[in-house]
Amino acid sequence: MNENLTLSEAFKQTTYPLSGHGPRSIQVLKEALEHIDGNLDSDMYGKGKVIEDFQEKMAGVLGKESAVFFPSGTMAQQIALRIWCDQKGLKRVAYHPLCHLEIHEEDGLKELHHIEPILLADSNRLITLDDVCNMNEDIACLLLELPQREIGGQLPEYSELEAISTYCREQGIKLHLDGARLFEILPYYQKSAAEICALFDSVYISFYKGIGGITGAVLAGDVDFTKESKVWKRRHGGDLISLYPYIISSDYYFEQRVDKMGQYYEDAKELATIVNECHGVNSKPAKPVSNMFHIHFAVPKEKLEPVLFSIYEATGLGIVGYLTKIDETSCYSELSIGDRYANIPTEAIKNAFQMLDEKMRAMI
Amino acid sequence: MNENLTLSEAFKQTTYPLSGHGPRSIQVLKEALEHIDGNLDSDMYGKGKVIEDFQEKMAGVLGKESAVFFPSGTMAQQIALRIWCDQKGLKRVAYHPLCHLEIHEEDGLKELHHIEPILLADSNRLITLDDVCNMNEDIACLLLELPQREIGGQLPEYSELEAISTYCREQGIKLHLDGARLFEILPYYQKSAAEICALFDSVYISFYKGIGGITGAVLAGDVDFTKESKVWKRRHGGDLISLYPYIISSDYYFEQRVDKMGQYYEDAKELATIVNECHGVNSKPAKPVSNMFHIHFAVPKEKLEPVLFSIYEATGLGIVGYLTKIDETSCYSELSIGDRYANIPTEAIKNAFQMLDEKMRAMI
Repeated sequence: MNENLTLSEAFKQTTYPLSGHGPRSIQVLKEALEHIDGNLDSDMYGKGKVIEDFQEKMAGVLGKESAVFFPSGTMAQQIALRIWCDQKGLKRVAYHPLCHLEIHEEDGLKELHHIEPILLADSNRLITLDDVCNMNEDIACLLLELPQREIGGQLPEYSELEAISTYCREQGIKLHLDGARLFEILPYYQKSAAEICALFDSVYISFYKGIGGITGAVLAGDVDFTKESKVWKRRHGGDLISLYPYIISSDYYFEQRVDKMGQYYEDAKELATIVNECHGVNSKPAKPVSNMFHIHFAVPKEKLEPVLFSIYEATGLGIVGYLTKIDETSCYSELSIGDRYANIPTEAIKNAFQMLDEKMRAMI
Repeated sequence: MNENLTLSEAFKQTTYPLSGHGPRSIQVLKEALEHIDGNLDSDMYGKGKVIEDFQEKMAGVLGKESAVFFPSGTMAQQIALRIWCDQKGLKRVAYHPLCHLEIHEEDGLKELHHIEPILLADSNRLITLDDVCNMNEDIACLLLELPQREIGGQLPEYSELEAISTYCREQGIKLHLDGARLFEILPYYQKSAAEICALFDSVYISFYKGIGGITGAVLAGDVDFTKESKVWKRRHGGDLISLYPYIISSDYYFEQRVDKMGQYYEDAKELATIVNECHGVNSKPAKPVSNMFHIHFAVPKEKLEPVLFSIYEATGLGIVGYLTKIDETSCYSELSIGDRYANIPTEAIKNAFQMLDEKMRAMI
């Protein structure tokens, strides 16, 4: 292995990367298009069979009246919150401190929509019913992200979720679901997507997380809501003349993978057990509730990086593709189990984590 | 031909539709991907070879320091105007009354960016140097669209354009080019894209007009400008994890067609001559200055529609796919010459317009 590689490159070059479905290459699109008739018409600015059929299908899956395909979740979610704020005449919402809108969108919600967010809960735990009930300020909408990605993909108990939903309805607060990884949590909750979505007024789902598509999102709700969302989609510059490359691939990989979420979840729990047996290494949550978890290392990033390089080279297993510094003594990364995991020999995983365990013991 | 068809459907079903390159079908994407290695990595949130190479190439073509690929022109242009307004601390711009931002974007510029537009010139003529000099209010940016699509694709004299550019520079007004059809006007001006863009501070170009790609736009300018545009691109929800389906197809069709703009322009002039020989039918402009022009009919839309159906059926030539009512006595449509025109037998065009001439004479 070339010594000048980044950890991301080294991870990609391993025989067995632990995370994901496969490389994000052009082949992902080529495969999705293979069985599509070239004579099929493009969608045209939100109209046409290819987009309308998929929107209808997803509305059905989510148990909502209507659904709209968006190029991105960033666009879909800002718009959802804007609609609920406009409806109530109040430009204030609440969400988790590590919400995607707060940390990954260059403050689009504030800069474009002038909506003020209330940050609920501490950044290292889930929003609870108490947090919602004890808010001092009135809000138009509460956004819940299931699972809460930035803290390892944690989930509240389903009863807590139901209680929050009931409370919001009583209080006239709209409840929006950031369901970027909605299908990934169905095996844990043992609920259908529609059952979970019934607790929410509006829902966003993504097609390039567990589904493994290229890009794309769906926003669903009642007809008045989705109709208004199309106006905002055009204002944002998202009402593209053709979205079919994303729609076709979203549909193709949805069909390929939506029923495999249970397997990914079982695999994630198995892997977390192996991880937690390693000295100075922990999964967060301790027991995963979806296909994802965070892996925490009780050593500084700079010390761990060369260790990972040597493990990847010796065992052919890629554990993580990047490390994020927590403080001077620890770091973490994210693991999302997909198609790859099932094809990795148990021996390769065992060897790599045995080596990691030994090296961690040597360091701490 | 089925009598319940819309004019658009009837047009598509003709043997020889006059406008465009071909059907907007999935085949357009399939063809562009055919010679692309499936192992090529996706772009990732604006990074990676596939997007960076294309942006660099387009910056070169446009003679600008830097270029950014956007999913849409709607997004790119709002952002360009926002950046210039922020820089001057003045949220006011000027553009033509039929500017894309004014009539096709659900007021995104006003609703998302709170920018006030001054409408220059009458809606049926081009913006002149006098219009610019006689503005009563201060503006941050002037947007010029070349060619001015909604009035048939008209163009100012090049000297007028230079004079406007000089004036704006003297006055500290940024000049932005809506160059959705920039390559289409190069044969008339006998200038390179870079020469024209040198008159402007920022430039947007599209890849699905004359270029015939799927979707996509490039915004170009100096490095500070494009760097800021990337922040806004993320805020708008346009910084997609993968834009490669649009980038690859934009590049492919750019290479296929950028050198054919001279032919399309000659074809448009030839066709306009035929059009203008028809009783009660006129091209606007009288002599096209690009591959496009409007075709005006001195009869009401309702009377013309059945006539067109009969011509399409009798001759196999599709003249237009829709009609827009002007008033009780007239209507119009748009023609954009592309690859299709060169493959139409002269006889088919002659027959169709002869029949149109006869039917128009019978009506007026």
